[in-house]
Amino acid sequence: MRPLRHENGSLLLLDQTRLPAETEWVACSDAAAVAAAIQNMIVRGAPAIGVTAAYGVALEAAKGRADSPAAFRLRMDEAIRILGKSRPTAVNLFWALDRMNGLLGKLEESNSLSDIPLSTSDLADRLLAEAQAMEEEDIAINRRIGAHGNALVPDGARILTHCNAGALATADYGTALGVIRAAHDAGKRIHVHADETRPYLQGARLTAWELMQDNIPVTLNCDNMAGWLMANKRIDLVITGADRIAANGDTANKIGTYSLAVLANYHRIPFYIAAPLSTIDLGMADGTRIPIEERPARELTEFRGIPIAPEGVRVYNPAFDVTPAELITAIITETGVLRKPFQKSILGAFR
Amino acid sequence: MRPLRHENGSLLLLDQTRLPAETEWVACSDAAAVAAAIQNMIVRGAPAIGVTAAYGVALEAAKGRADSPAAFRLRMDEAIRILGKSRPTAVNLFWALDRMNGLLGKLEESNSLSDIPLSTSDLADRLLAEAQAMEEEDIAINRRIGAHGNALVPDGARILTHCNAGALATADYGTALGVIRAAHDAGKRIHVHADETRPYLQGARLTAWELMQDNIPVTLNCDNMAGWLMANKRIDLVITGADRIAANGDTANKIGTYSLAVLANYHRIPFYIAAPLSTIDLGMADGTRIPIEERPARELTEFRGIPIAPEGVRVYNPAFDVTPAELITAIITETGVLRKPFQKSILGAFR
Repeated sequence: MRPLRHENGSLLLLDQTRLPAETEWVACSDAAAVAAAIQNMIVRGAPAIGVTAAYGVALEAAKGRADSPAAFRLRMDEAIRILGKSRPTAVNLFWALDRMNGLLGKLEESNSLSDIPLSTSDLADRLLAEAQAMEEEDIAINRRIGAHGNALVPDGARILTHCNAGALATADYGTALGVIRAAHDAGKRIHVHADETRPYLQGARLTAWELMQDNIPVTLNCDNMAGWLMANKRIDLVITGADRIAANGDTANKIGTYSLAVLANYHRIPFYIAAPLSTIDLGMADGTRIPIEERPARELTEFRGIPIAPEGVRVYNPAFDVTPAELITAIITETGVLRKPFQKSILGAFR
Repeated sequence: MRPLRHENGSLLLLDQTRLPAETEWVACSDAAAVAAAIQNMIVRGAPAIGVTAAYGVALEAAKGRADSPAAFRLRMDEAIRILGKSRPTAVNLFWALDRMNGLLGKLEESNSLSDIPLSTSDLADRLLAEAQAMEEEDIAINRRIGAHGNALVPDGARILTHCNAGALATADYGTALGVIRAAHDAGKRIHVHADETRPYLQGARLTAWELMQDNIPVTLNCDNMAGWLMANKRIDLVITGADRIAANGDTANKIGTYSLAVLANYHRIPFYIAAPLSTIDLGMADGTRIPIEERPARELTEFRGIPIAPEGVRVYNPAFDVTPAELITAIITETGVLRKPFQKSILGAFR
């Protein structure tokens, strides 16, 4: 269920705004097209955005195979700039761009010291290989997250999740849904409750669809039903992905995650975050300064062009919220399950 | 902004499934049509359902003007039976039907003792007059709720509400929105935050529309954004209506109300219920046995016939939840503001 494929010099993205009714692929051949696809949520999910942005750099590099080294560098700078402006919250985007830029810098540096410098075409090959490596690494990381998280899932668990932190949000397998897949594959009889996740309905359109494809039992609910499910003792644990985790464990994720964390706390239900280390932003001491994207009013006021609110109504539409570390039971990463105090366990994970 | 009008022997109901895009009125001329309108949410909101059901009895009575007394009674019993099956949670429905049935019983009893008994046509007149009285009383009650509630609203208050407990949910003026109207009319600079209220979008389609008609400032948000609004100190109080209040103060209201109450409690924000005494069910000791209506899966899986979830997905769709009394700061009724212990204050209100 890979949401992105590099084929014949193009990046094919499964159009996640059309699922589950239509399965359409959008082809991108340069950085601008990739940036637009990220902006318009053709592709979404922090890890998938990271890998997609890396491919955006690689596609643009392929266009510059005949460039002079200086023109190539300008092209790369511009590609990184426009990709970096596509969405502000998920840190994986910046992590991926930094990694591509870091590789390019190293290659340029060794070129400057070498008698036989790499051509710009060679550079483009290296950048594509790096993007491909990031894609494969992401899948391997998610499988490790799944294995670590599986240990936290009791047999028979009823698991609530929000938005889509699945195969569709990553290169494959998923983070929160990776844990769910690992538990299911281990033979545990689990049942997933999926918040529909307004306004974009990632839970209804993507998570429910993805789990049904894998025959993992899933029940859909409106976001506002989560508390009532918990009150009726129908939820054993909550697990979501993350868009950016600060050094102290504060976690930005899809809007509504914070409410779930408060509700889980009130009902004494464990609340887990599943994310790769690339989602952790050590430069952010806590969550207070994580930039929160505000998206267009029309996401709330219309559905496929049909008005569902009065013309001209004022709208509040943040795409993310920040859950403070104290409401998080544990953070599941590829290196293991991080516990409180997160400041210490997070630093430990990077060693 | 009255959502119901009795004219020329018909009950006209503003079709609340079509608002705000279309302003259409549905004409009902018998109890079965009224029951279907309640069931299909053409009219909704506990007080409006009560008044509408009373008119349903009156319309059916008008059809029986030529009936024998025995046939008339059978007709009335059947009308009350089908209206009583339309929706299970809002107690105002049963309260209104009991009141109509009680009046009819009294009239029949005095007929049996009288030399000049009332004709069935006279009975129909009396039942219509009773429904009309209930409509006018409901408006008067809401104005008193507004006046009492206004005292709880500080100048400059940012008020979160859920679903629609407005003019459209009552004969006019509203309960929760009645309090908001009273505060606005008193010159307080208030701002309303309206949960869109999935799956039926009463907040987006009805509350936002109703408040904009009255020039009361309103901002729309998704249900899952309420916690984040509170965390950012953008909400000073929460106020909702109710569908049924138990003798101990436990309150059934639109699904999502319970989550809001937990969130308000966590953020130390007052959480108010506004409702007439006819919403209080003294026969229900607490909220545990209030019947909770489950509605069709398609309310979550499609929007105006467009699929928004995978074909065949399992769905959880309770229309209401129950907020325990301990999470409620006060209940605003026409007799005043009821405080804890509610068991005592509620009984006092009926004296």
